[in-house]
Amino acid sequence: MVQQLSTISILKHASFAFPDREVVSRGYDGEIERLPYSLAYRRVAQLANTLQAMGIRAGDRVGTVAWSNTRHFELFYGITGIGAICHKVNPRFSRQQVIDVINQAEDRILFVDPGFVDLIEGIRQELQTVKRVIVLAKAGEQGGEPTYDALISGFDDTFKWPNFDENAAAFLVFTSGTTSAPKGVMYSHRSVVLHAMANLASGVKPQRYESCVMPLASMFHVTAWGHPFLCPMVGSKLVLPGPKLDAVSCYELIEAEGVTLAFGVPTLWARILEHVEEQGGGFSTLQAVACGGAPAPRAMIRQFGEQFGVEFISGWGMTEVSPTGAAGNKVIGEPKDDSEQYWAARRKNRVVFGIEMKLIDEAGNTVPNNGESTGELLVRGNWVAARYFGDDSISEGRFTDDGWMRTGDVATIDRHGRMEIVDRIKDLIKSGGEWISSLELENAALQHPAVAEAAAIAVPDPKWIERPLLVVRLQDGVEAQDCEIKDLMEQSLDQKWKVPDRIEFVDELPQTSTGKVAKTELRKRFGAADKP
Amino acid sequence: MVQQLSTISILKHASFAFPDREVVSRGYDGEIERLPYSLAYRRVAQLANTLQAMGIRAGDRVGTVAWSNTRHFELFYGITGIGAICHKVNPRFSRQQVIDVINQAEDRILFVDPGFVDLIEGIRQELQTVKRVIVLAKAGEQGGEPTYDALISGFDDTFKWPNFDENAAAFLVFTSGTTSAPKGVMYSHRSVVLHAMANLASGVKPQRYESCVMPLASMFHVTAWGHPFLCPMVGSKLVLPGPKLDAVSCYELIEAEGVTLAFGVPTLWARILEHVEEQGGGFSTLQAVACGGAPAPRAMIRQFGEQFGVEFISGWGMTEVSPTGAAGNKVIGEPKDDSEQYWAARRKNRVVFGIEMKLIDEAGNTVPNNGESTGELLVRGNWVAARYFGDDSISEGRFTDDGWMRTGDVATIDRHGRMEIVDRIKDLIKSGGEWISSLELENAALQHPAVAEAAAIAVPDPKWIERPLLVVRLQDGVEAQDCEIKDLMEQSLDQKWKVPDRIEFVDELPQTSTGKVAKTELRKRFGAADKP
Repeated sequence: MVQQLSTISILKHASFAFPDREVVSRGYDGEIERLPYSLAYRRVAQLANTLQAMGIRAGDRVGTVAWSNTRHFELFYGITGIGAICHKVNPRFSRQQVIDVINQAEDRILFVDPGFVDLIEGIRQELQTVKRVIVLAKAGEQGGEPTYDALISGFDDTFKWPNFDENAAAFLVFTSGTTSAPKGVMYSHRSVVLHAMANLASGVKPQRYESCVMPLASMFHVTAWGHPFLCPMVGSKLVLPGPKLDAVSCYELIEAEGVTLAFGVPTLWARILEHVEEQGGGFSTLQAVACGGAPAPRAMIRQFGEQFGVEFISGWGMTEVSPTGAAGNKVIGEPKDDSEQYWAARRKNRVVFGIEMKLIDEAGNTVPNNGESTGELLVRGNWVAARYFGDDSISEGRFTDDGWMRTGDVATIDRHGRMEIVDRIKDLIKSGGEWISSLELENAALQHPAVAEAAAIAVPDPKWIERPLLVVRLQDGVEAQDCEIKDLMEQSLDQKWKVPDRIEFVDELPQTSTGKVAKTELRKRFGAADKP
Repeated sequence: MVQQLSTISILKHASFAFPDREVVSRGYDGEIERLPYSLAYRRVAQLANTLQAMGIRAGDRVGTVAWSNTRHFELFYGITGIGAICHKVNPRFSRQQVIDVINQAEDRILFVDPGFVDLIEGIRQELQTVKRVIVLAKAGEQGGEPTYDALISGFDDTFKWPNFDENAAAFLVFTSGTTSAPKGVMYSHRSVVLHAMANLASGVKPQRYESCVMPLASMFHVTAWGHPFLCPMVGSKLVLPGPKLDAVSCYELIEAEGVTLAFGVPTLWARILEHVEEQGGGFSTLQAVACGGAPAPRAMIRQFGEQFGVEFISGWGMTEVSPTGAAGNKVIGEPKDDSEQYWAARRKNRVVFGIEMKLIDEAGNTVPNNGESTGELLVRGNWVAARYFGDDSISEGRFTDDGWMRTGDVATIDRHGRMEIVDRIKDLIKSGGEWISSLELENAALQHPAVAEAAAIAVPDPKWIERPLLVVRLQDGVEAQDCEIKDLMEQSLDQKWKVPDRIEFVDELPQTSTGKVAKTELRKRFGAADKP
């Protein structure tokens, strides 16, 4: 028989099979809120009744401006369960971008965390479609309006979920454009359910009923989108960090809640490890950390494994891929020692079932998957975007007629289906007619124990047209000379001419609204023209 | 974007991501054949070209009469990849049933293992639609016809797989009717892919890339249907036992190939454990065994865990559910000691994501999921049959208008979504107006260390209308008196009147064509009327 895939079916299953397993989050007051899946399902029914009473219909957009917490979790299910579309607004966008995306999405209602009320109040006059703003808080009032809990509490806790086409849209998210306006990506019920199933089915991460999972990220960030579906699907406990995403708060929650599997970007993990080193503790329950968004230093991977017995799992994803496209990299028979071959393999990620990948050259011809030839990475699959939201012109050139999406990443693929990102196309450095990968330089620099973060950009050069410049943040309290780092890089890179002539040390690397290094900023600061 | 789910996409993924991982099987000559997924994908393309050249088109039925082996694996993908329907014929059916199912399916071609050639030759005149019979063997000839390998070797090893609706039929199987004619069940591409993903996603069984998986069953049997899809999806090695399904052969293959996860019915596991005891060895690589089809004795579960460190995983499925409907039964906080509560929980299985379950009473009202109330089990989901193949009259009464299938099992469901089969409706014993579950009696008897197998049936009784009779096979070389067994059963059962008045000892319990105890036979032998 055919049943339409739907987001709400996941929470319904959790309520039936894992009624006592919890979603846990820390509120603004530091208080821990606990929401068993059975209660979540009933509250989501209340929310659905509330939305219907407010006139929200299938296809309408409802915005959320919130950290990772239990109410945001409920909104994921309640909004999409009635067939409306949940627009996850990224509050780290610029003021104007926040206005633009809400207007472009035509959000009818906004659900807003207490910490973002000022942001929204400050732009309220410019929001063209928003009829109502509801504050995500316990029962009470804010600004003369009942809060979220007060509002839903008046409604019945059962709901007859409508049956609709699984290809109906469920979520809308805008990617952070570093150089262009944010681009909207829609996700269907089918893509959300298949993405969650495929993540669990890949067997790469140790996630099952007994697991306790924590994304060290916000639910408006790509890192945290999958977990609200993966966890209830399999019965794992889900720990959400709330507004405090600093190292100390995250570490405390990992320990207090018994987290076994955590997801985060390398910079945050670096700070957590520094904190653990300082206070002299360890991880009581953590079994594995999954990392994405940027390359992780070898020292970090070693420290997790050797000092704490925590497995380090890599992954690759992007907003347009829901996010997971590839994860893990094991090949039976490959060396497990500390060789260069071992570390090279650790930078790769294997495509997951349900996603196809291929490489093309500038002429559009397919590049062989030999682990060496590079090309632009194209992806295809049920949870890959088919186009961007809005005007067709935004999607132009990004999607092929036969369903492939151009990622803008340059990569290799080896014969074990493992993909390694070489660079973003726009971050490549063309020196004297030869390409240099900024990522290769950054990886080489990160082998130096003093280097905490590194970012390579192209700067203009009268002779070579472009030369690489490396911007480095050192570990706190550690010193290093640029010549030491260059020496190490020369050993690691295969060609000497790739070594940057110049290294600049900074106290902090500028970040985009989604936590990546803002190379646009660095280019401005160090006198390079920005790339299109 | 939307891509149609298809069986061939699984093997394509394996060829891309796990080219060197193998399907291994033992041939008739005892020789081990090794088929890496990359080679399998090319041979399946040859097979697809062969089938097309023979005039097979989308929707046509092609029959297989074969054990679990690499060529049968290829047929699963090649037949379904071109949009034709793979009819897995159960050669353990009676001669007439084999004729009937092939004629009913209208199989155009039959692919037949060497061991079943005589069977098929003997009925060939009565097969109305079969144009050709191809023997599954290495290059050569048999009966003047080229064998499978000879036939496909002439064709190209690439194929442009057609894109078709994921709801198209992929497989046809007939259930073994113990009292009625076999009933056909169709499986779509969508149901096969979602079933495989859901099995892996459930996290109940330790299956991932590094795993080596062996179904101790034939690919015409429900136990072995999922593995040819689960293994290539995740990159596990797949070991297929070929024609020899005895304890010694299975054990040898487990050890020789490094099997980590194996699936089988309790009777076969019992024989394997006896063999290991006798020869004094152990399991070098086995981590977990999954068991279904019948209740497993506590002694077996204990022996696996305590003596061999092998996890024992239960599951529930049926032909109409592809087969997996429920698996695993852990609840955090439940006792892990040897208590009755612990063992009661071990008899339960939790519904997997994608399947819904409910219980109804005789009036069709829903029965509460309190772990105690019993009712007929109804299931619903993407890999549950919507009807039987053929005439509508066959499906009558088994399927509700809102998509539920009546399983014919009586069960309880507890508040953790765990279902326990109490009995088949037709195996219930009605004694003096009270129902006695045959399964409850069998479980009680299996607690006696001497009891290898037990089957309870109803026999006519002048006073009570029906009384239970227990048929027992003792462990080899062990003796026990019926009074000992009755005493133990009385301790275990909550009511004394449930204890059977009579125990019959047999050397062997009769089996159905799918390896279940044939209660129909027992009823005949012990003077009870068979049930409808």
